[in-house]
Amino acid sequence: MRVCDLIRRKRDGGTLTAEEIRYLIEGYTDGSIPDYQMSALTMAIYFRGMTAQETAALTFAMADSGEQMALPNVGGVFVDKHSTGGVGDKTTLIVAPIVAACGGKVAKLSGRGLGHTGGTTDKLSAIPGFRIDLTPDEIAKAVGECGLCVTGSTGELAPADKKLYALRDVTATVDSIPLIAASIMSKKIAAGAKNIVLDVKTGSGAFMKRSADAKALARAMVSIGTHRGLRVTAMITNMDAPLGYAIGNTLEVIEAVQTLRGIGPADLTELCLKLSAQMLRMCSGGSREECFRMASNALYNGLAYERFLEMVRAQGGSTDVLNNTALFRKSCCYRTIEAPADGYIRRMDAEKCGIAAMQLGAGRQKKEDSIDYAAGIVLDVKPGSAVCAGDRIATLYAEREELFDDALATLSDAFEIADSAPKPIPMVIDTVSNVQ
Amino acid sequence: MRVCDLIRRKRDGGTLTAEEIRYLIEGYTDGSIPDYQMSALTMAIYFRGMTAQETAALTFAMADSGEQMALPNVGGVFVDKHSTGGVGDKTTLIVAPIVAACGGKVAKLSGRGLGHTGGTTDKLSAIPGFRIDLTPDEIAKAVGECGLCVTGSTGELAPADKKLYALRDVTATVDSIPLIAASIMSKKIAAGAKNIVLDVKTGSGAFMKRSADAKALARAMVSIGTHRGLRVTAMITNMDAPLGYAIGNTLEVIEAVQTLRGIGPADLTELCLKLSAQMLRMCSGGSREECFRMASNALYNGLAYERFLEMVRAQGGSTDVLNNTALFRKSCCYRTIEAPADGYIRRMDAEKCGIAAMQLGAGRQKKEDSIDYAAGIVLDVKPGSAVCAGDRIATLYAEREELFDDALATLSDAFEIADSAPKPIPMVIDTVSNVQ
Repeated sequence: MRVCDLIRRKRDGGTLTAEEIRYLIEGYTDGSIPDYQMSALTMAIYFRGMTAQETAALTFAMADSGEQMALPNVGGVFVDKHSTGGVGDKTTLIVAPIVAACGGKVAKLSGRGLGHTGGTTDKLSAIPGFRIDLTPDEIAKAVGECGLCVTGSTGELAPADKKLYALRDVTATVDSIPLIAASIMSKKIAAGAKNIVLDVKTGSGAFMKRSADAKALARAMVSIGTHRGLRVTAMITNMDAPLGYAIGNTLEVIEAVQTLRGIGPADLTELCLKLSAQMLRMCSGGSREECFRMASNALYNGLAYERFLEMVRAQGGSTDVLNNTALFRKSCCYRTIEAPADGYIRRMDAEKCGIAAMQLGAGRQKKEDSIDYAAGIVLDVKPGSAVCAGDRIATLYAEREELFDDALATLSDAFEIADSAPKPIPMVIDTVSNVQ
Repeated sequence: MRVCDLIRRKRDGGTLTAEEIRYLIEGYTDGSIPDYQMSALTMAIYFRGMTAQETAALTFAMADSGEQMALPNVGGVFVDKHSTGGVGDKTTLIVAPIVAACGGKVAKLSGRGLGHTGGTTDKLSAIPGFRIDLTPDEIAKAVGECGLCVTGSTGELAPADKKLYALRDVTATVDSIPLIAASIMSKKIAAGAKNIVLDVKTGSGAFMKRSADAKALARAMVSIGTHRGLRVTAMITNMDAPLGYAIGNTLEVIEAVQTLRGIGPADLTELCLKLSAQMLRMCSGGSREECFRMASNALYNGLAYERFLEMVRAQGGSTDVLNNTALFRKSCCYRTIEAPADGYIRRMDAEKCGIAAMQLGAGRQKKEDSIDYAAGIVLDVKPGSAVCAGDRIATLYAEREELFDDALATLSDAFEIADSAPKPIPMVIDTVSNVQ
């Protein structure tokens, strides 16, 4: 097999066999195929796409490139959840306890945040003492005790994906639907997931700005699952505005706690219950309505919050700050933004909100940056909110005064006020699933 | 400037500025921009193309990446010639002496052959003693004495092109019209050419199989010339069948000598006179008809052949073998191919003829292969020739019997015999020029 011939075939719109794709990924992982051939191939894939078979073969080759994890041997039905990344997305903190409270098992491996999107392990790390470096044995123990755990990735899952992603990042080939789908699913498969609910975000704060692209990505990931005999449901959800009101690690933990106590923002609560319902369908086989009711009950009767506290304890975190969120360390400085005119919030650019939070210290511009857990933004409005000139619409928190300069400019630019309210966008736009 | 952003812009159909292209080429040449970004960029260019401005900027940046040659200071009008490569293409050996005999100056830098196409320096090297490594001073002396020289490239002309071509070769991005145009023209510009006649081949033996692609390449190269203030004429010529009857270095020198003596094949003679006429228009400013008549006179009155002998002497070669071509070393072995049926030669695949010659030892499969100057093929027919079953249609020459196995199979496959003759293809299909 000559790599150049395989690149040419893809370039000319042909398809690669599973064997050829495995040859490419194995060669790339062991270094015998150089970066410059792989980047030419990924650019050709960017233009030509991949068939469902090719995408599945790429995913499996990447999943097989490193360690293969097995789910803890504790009984019950495990269900996994993955979000493509958004602003103010603290759903895992709420959804995992809901599912566990209803009898499902969740052993979730989460990532760190980068750029304008936050990462679940960063949010949990805002809880003093919380450990995100559980060993496989500790994961099994935690799940055995309380039915859930959320920790950082252990071992080297799908190293081919890691290497390929780093290359795509510097060669403008990140935004290719088959490559994104294979990247996400290879890690889920290597982690041993059998039942997966995907939250595919779309809108200004999402990687997929257009819902048609989000749907194509959802379909590609469900198709990979079908090829592997996995149950996969992908929900295409609205990330045009931030989820909830809080952006920033501690601020988002506090909002998650409020939501688990039944007093969270409507949009966040709705999304968490719908995600939980899809996950519970995989565990219980009940109807969507039954599962939604189960999830709601667990949220409003406090059992989900109890599970959350158990998980935090099992992972070494302090529950004092959760039961009394006033104990969280606060930022030294704050600023507010006021509405410049009467009207309706017509648009709230989620990506700009996320960048402003990052500029305040809540996120990482580069991988090696450190994070200020207390920093962030609390919004007062949602798209459609009526405001009067001078009304506070957001509060910004940071450790040092000079951090406000850029963040205030960025965030002010995120709001658009108009004479009429915008057409509402549903929280769940569409669902793609291979679950009967 | 972030390289990734430039790749993305090109990927998305945008254009790069001359400054950005220069930054990319300078960075690639000095190693600060890695191969993997350049290969992603060239693949994006493959799909998106380049504007005339971008192509010119790329050409100039590559031309400026190394040594800049000046034409010898010997007076007269210099005119250069370049062929995109074909099978049996010995035109330079004939055209350069014709132009010099008519008063033009030709200081041509030629290349070695690779794959199914031959190289002019290989053909000249078949003449015992002929030197293709002239120094700039020796070039000036040779041109001063006899008005022409043909030698290998001296110094490091356009090293960026050399590096980029090697990368394109292994990443399936060779066949991009702007990249081919920039590659050819950057070397011509670095070599100091001001007046250039391009022979853009099209057909089965050419790099450009379709004449529309050949015309696009011709236009791109003329446009680069216009951007630089150079006079450029590109002739799109037929390479569907080999040029003349001889393929292989010594065999082609002999055919060139016959042509210079006025007894060469009709197709080769016609092409050489038309190329010479275009070159002479740049030197003399005469009409196409006047220049064609001048070229014909020089060919048929023997002055062009005299110039050829002078050049060979000036470059250290033996003229004995030219005056008596029976003195050339011959191959030990030969084989013939006969027509399998009565009919007309409907097709003669030039690429297959070239590959068969390479298999006989006349060409290089890999850069480092050595060449057998005596090896090759002499054809007996042209497309349209009427043949009877059993008529000899080709003779193959090689140094060792075992070399015939592959070559006979390849060459037999090159001929197609049918009941009717094919529609003739003109030798010169089209001309693109910026010369008034």
